[in-house]
Amino acid sequence: MASTTLPTLSDVAKAASVSSATVSRYFSNPDSVATKTAERIRQAVLETGYTPNRLAGSLASNKSQLVSILIPQLAPSLFIETIEALVSKLSSAGCIVTVGVTEFDAAHNEALIMAALAYRAKAIIVTGEVSDEVRKFIRQSSTTAIEIWDLPEDPIDIAVGFSHWEIGRSLAQFVRSRGYTRPHFVTNPGPRGIKRRNGFLEEWQTGTGCDVTESLMQLPFQPGAARRIFAEIQRLEERPDVVLCGPDWMAQGLIVEAMHFGLRVPEDIAVIGFGNSAVASEMRPTITSVDIDDQRIAETIAEILLNRDRGEEIREKVVNTGFKIIARESA
Amino acid sequence: MASTTLPTLSDVAKAASVSSATVSRYFSNPDSVATKTAERIRQAVLETGYTPNRLAGSLASNKSQLVSILIPQLAPSLFIETIEALVSKLSSAGCIVTVGVTEFDAAHNEALIMAALAYRAKAIIVTGEVSDEVRKFIRQSSTTAIEIWDLPEDPIDIAVGFSHWEIGRSLAQFVRSRGYTRPHFVTNPGPRGIKRRNGFLEEWQTGTGCDVTESLMQLPFQPGAARRIFAEIQRLEERPDVVLCGPDWMAQGLIVEAMHFGLRVPEDIAVIGFGNSAVASEMRPTITSVDIDDQRIAETIAEILLNRDRGEEIREKVVNTGFKIIARESA
Repeated sequence: MASTTLPTLSDVAKAASVSSATVSRYFSNPDSVATKTAERIRQAVLETGYTPNRLAGSLASNKSQLVSILIPQLAPSLFIETIEALVSKLSSAGCIVTVGVTEFDAAHNEALIMAALAYRAKAIIVTGEVSDEVRKFIRQSSTTAIEIWDLPEDPIDIAVGFSHWEIGRSLAQFVRSRGYTRPHFVTNPGPRGIKRRNGFLEEWQTGTGCDVTESLMQLPFQPGAARRIFAEIQRLEERPDVVLCGPDWMAQGLIVEAMHFGLRVPEDIAVIGFGNSAVASEMRPTITSVDIDDQRIAETIAEILLNRDRGEEIREKVVNTGFKIIARESA
Repeated sequence: MASTTLPTLSDVAKAASVSSATVSRYFSNPDSVATKTAERIRQAVLETGYTPNRLAGSLASNKSQLVSILIPQLAPSLFIETIEALVSKLSSAGCIVTVGVTEFDAAHNEALIMAALAYRAKAIIVTGEVSDEVRKFIRQSSTTAIEIWDLPEDPIDIAVGFSHWEIGRSLAQFVRSRGYTRPHFVTNPGPRGIKRRNGFLEEWQTGTGCDVTESLMQLPFQPGAARRIFAEIQRLEERPDVVLCGPDWMAQGLIVEAMHFGLRVPEDIAVIGFGNSAVASEMRPTITSVDIDDQRIAETIAEILLNRDRGEEIREKVVNTGFKIIARESA
């Protein structure tokens, strides 16, 4: 059983028969001490159970290298590629990154945020809705809060994202420029999905005076979703000539269904995805999709955290990292 | 900015103008106090920044409801469905669950384990390799360690999984019973993937006296993997009649490639996946796959944690949750 008090740096120094300064030096730069000494310190750390460098003293100094990322669902999730880029970038910058899964549950989201604050996380990265009470609570803390994947007017602290309404609008322009006349929009009913849908519908109706047919996805994403939505499309009076699918996996699923029922993609029915995940370039036909710049989001966040560490003021509270429509074979 | 000392239960009691005993009662069972009092306490918790019930006092009591799950990669990952079942089960049991992503990096895996121990996690759930030193370190702690997805001979603490060698063996028997004669095995080069491969090869060669052709996947999973492996298969002197694919997404990718090159699945080339993820029953043709019982793994782990909480001794240190081959259209 572990002891109930945390071992200290001097416990390690004692066990390794070196000075506390040497142990300190080892933690900030292992190469700065002799190899044999380094190995002795490493052994002492393991023997004593001393918490390694970054986390040590986090409660005392109110700082840690812990970063907590909260997402609604693991997979299939639109966020996964952004989160992967973030985990990779922040981990290589020395952060201890953990991912919390909220399951679209507000109370659960709140509990994970409170846990991160209790552990004095350096940063919380959120993708879901945050209640006014919890927003206030986060603002009182010294934890950096970064909302990603949207451009809120009143961010809790900092936001790094892009305009979903603009994505919808650009998709409508793209679809029109390709000569399609009967789009079908598959709406992801989250707040961001609704914005994309509204951007698309407004632009399409203004530009063409025509209507759009629609299907609603379910959250959390359910098995069989693509089959169900394709069946819905098949039941329409007139078949759409292009389907805007939300996530690429939904686009992939619709292509599989379309081909199974003898339709050619894009000749009989075109398909557009969202997220530009690996599957978009791997599917046959390859999938036209919306690319959001995961790397840029990750780099922007790493830079913000670094600047905060240095005590610099963050002037730009809402960072727009943009998006791109990538045209491929499917539309 | 937050104060550097954690607010206490009595801070909350003072702010809510109730006794500490009432606050305590509220945390163990909110319904046991009057609605108005409960609301006052909730407000006081938010005002003071008191850490909610489960985490409170975790450092003092050496216990928390924090569960840390470590996986090598978010998506595409073989583990995702097991992790989702676990997150859901443990969250509804009142745990604060976080997922750490190790990126197949031993040092990073170690840092995440140490962080979980430093935060006095109730449990660490690991899928990757753990060095002897870190094993010793975990054993000295009061944290429950659960290795999942394998049946190690000498578990760190407790293991919940199944036999990958047996899966390989059963797949060989299945393939033979279906009359296939030229299997191609796509090996996932992780320790578990190697065991499945060895089980398959030993059983196949013993049973038939024949050879097996092979491809090696890369870890972490790379975009374009299915295309590359299908191209490898196309270059073989004789085309295999069945391909054992590892993850279902690889099976899906191979089916897409095969159909693109005019081959019929399963008539010209049969395909078998692993993991029985949603895609297996959604693909056209549906994919024959190996089902591992995610729900049973999650329930077993929840029960183990509950029993430890109650102070019961865990007699069964290695729990075999088994597997099933699900025959569908693709083989």
